Amino acid sequence: MSKSDWTAPPREALRASVVGPIADYDPSSTPGYSGDKDSGAKALVERGAVLADLQEKLFANGRSGDHRNVLLVVQGMDTAGKGGIVAHVGGLCDPQGLAITGFGKPTPEELSHDFLWRIHKALPPAGKIGIFDRSHYEDVLPVRVHNLVPESVWSQRYDIINQFERELVDAGTTVLKVALVVSKDEQKKRLTERLDNPTKYWKYNPADIDERGYWEDYLQAYQAIFDRTDNDHAPWYLIGADRKWFSRLAVCELLIDALERLDLSWPAPTFDLEHEQRRVADC
Amino acid sequence: MSKSDWTAPPREALRASVVGPIADYDPSSTPGYSGDKDSGAKALVERGAVLADLQEKLFANGRSGDHRNVLLVVQGMDTAGKGGIVAHVGGLCDPQGLAITGFGKPTPEELSHDFLWRIHKALPPAGKIGIFDRSHYEDVLPVRVHNLVPESVWSQRYDIINQFERELVDAGTTVLKVALVVSKDEQKKRLTERLDNPTKYWKYNPADIDERGYWEDYLQAYQAIFDRTDNDHAPWYLIGADRKWFSRLAVCELLIDALERLDLSWPAPTFDLEHEQRRVADC
Repeated sequence: MSKSDWTAPPREALRASVVGPIADYDPSSTPGYSGDKDSGAKALVERGAVLADLQEKLFANGRSGDHRNVLLVVQGMDTAGKGGIVAHVGGLCDPQGLAITGFGKPTPEELSHDFLWRIHKALPPAGKIGIFDRSHYEDVLPVRVHNLVPESVWSQRYDIINQFERELVDAGTTVLKVALVVSKDEQKKRLTERLDNPTKYWKYNPADIDERGYWEDYLQAYQAIFDRTDNDHAPWYLIGADRKWFSRLAVCELLIDALERLDLSWPAPTFDLEHEQRRVADC
Repeated sequence: MSKSDWTAPPREALRASVVGPIADYDPSSTPGYSGDKDSGAKALVERGAVLADLQEKLFANGRSGDHRNVLLVVQGMDTAGKGGIVAHVGGLCDPQGLAITGFGKPTPEELSHDFLWRIHKALPPAGKIGIFDRSHYEDVLPVRVHNLVPESVWSQRYDIINQFERELVDAGTTVLKVALVVSKDEQKKRLTERLDNPTKYWKYNPADIDERGYWEDYLQAYQAIFDRTDNDHAPWYLIGADRKWFSRLAVCELLIDALERLDLSWPAPTFDLEHEQRRVADC
């Protein structure tokens, strides 16, 4: 089984506090994984089936009164492959069991509320795996880098976020957070590709070049997140994204690990089994 | 290419007005398709890739200002495989491009509004494929069979639904509606399986046996839907569901056909291409 290519459990090998600081992190490295691209791609298929089974079990329990669920927060700089994670890891699951939300630039309505308002509305229901493509962490990333609100406001958000996630976890949500780290060279390559390929023009946003100019500021803002919001109950994982096959496999493994630790079993019948078997036999 | 196993386009061969009435329909038949299970399964893989490409193109256009989208309504009696359609046809697409909603028994809040209230809230945004697992048609199916509202109320809903769907289509939504038809024998087999397999208990609902007692009434209620709401702009397809491989392939083909008729191309750049190419080269 390909999982044996892991020399350490991903939840340990990729933890932000272990592999950081981000400024020194090599986005083409594959911490804890000794396999190559081919074995990684094979592993994703095999482990995808494991993930799908666990996800169905979570869903079944959600339908049967268990309130637990999972929230995967995906952050990363432009071109780091956030959408690819949603497509290729989320795509391993039954789409009915997912609650995917992409958070863009806040709308005027969203801005008229506190920054967690739109987040609360998008939280997954019981039994589902919620995936956030960007999240409440935007409010301490671009918002901090560009001081879109005063420092006195954004600097308080780390504590607010910790409290929010603590509450989520206490209510039955398994929270895991992944930061996809792309290198500056790889980002340039990916931006170039988007402009070279007419099927990818729509993915290109001129503002990405502007943001690229704030690379160091973003690294600092990410590091602040890891320093202040990487908690055992809502951990941050730092995942090199220069190798897409690795980031997808890593996130798949982290989800499997989170689901396995829920120790799910198939729900017991909520009805009199023998009685219903007779009813079906006679119908 | 497996598509050649189709002797007639699915949108013609499966149209409710062509293959009906439902009472005479053989749910194990595969109208318009001459292939067998193996070729059908192969075709689903091949055609799934075509569907995924078209869906990405729809999504790309939605991101670029095109307001069009698609709504797939899935109805069918218990065990007909509605969830399987969502999982195995929806599962061919990038989950980010889907907006899936399952409509259960209405909540007190939903009942306090008109029957289209919860439907409107779940309509897909631009560029997405909405999938309704059950829909506003529940309000003329169980509601009609059990007279949950007076006949004077439900009997008016056909016109209301036609008007609603006309409005949707005029606003840029491609609407297609599939009714999965399972035979009474096959339903009994599937209910029995659910009670024989602990991993499927959660799918079993004792009320399904009660509903089974109203089989003829449901056939009449379905026929009324086809007679009154099968319109060229929002057509109904009657799809035999005793062979799951066929129902999945058929719905995949209907979606492909709907997307192809949108005649989508990749969005043109919304920026000065050469200028941005220079910016990326210099960054």
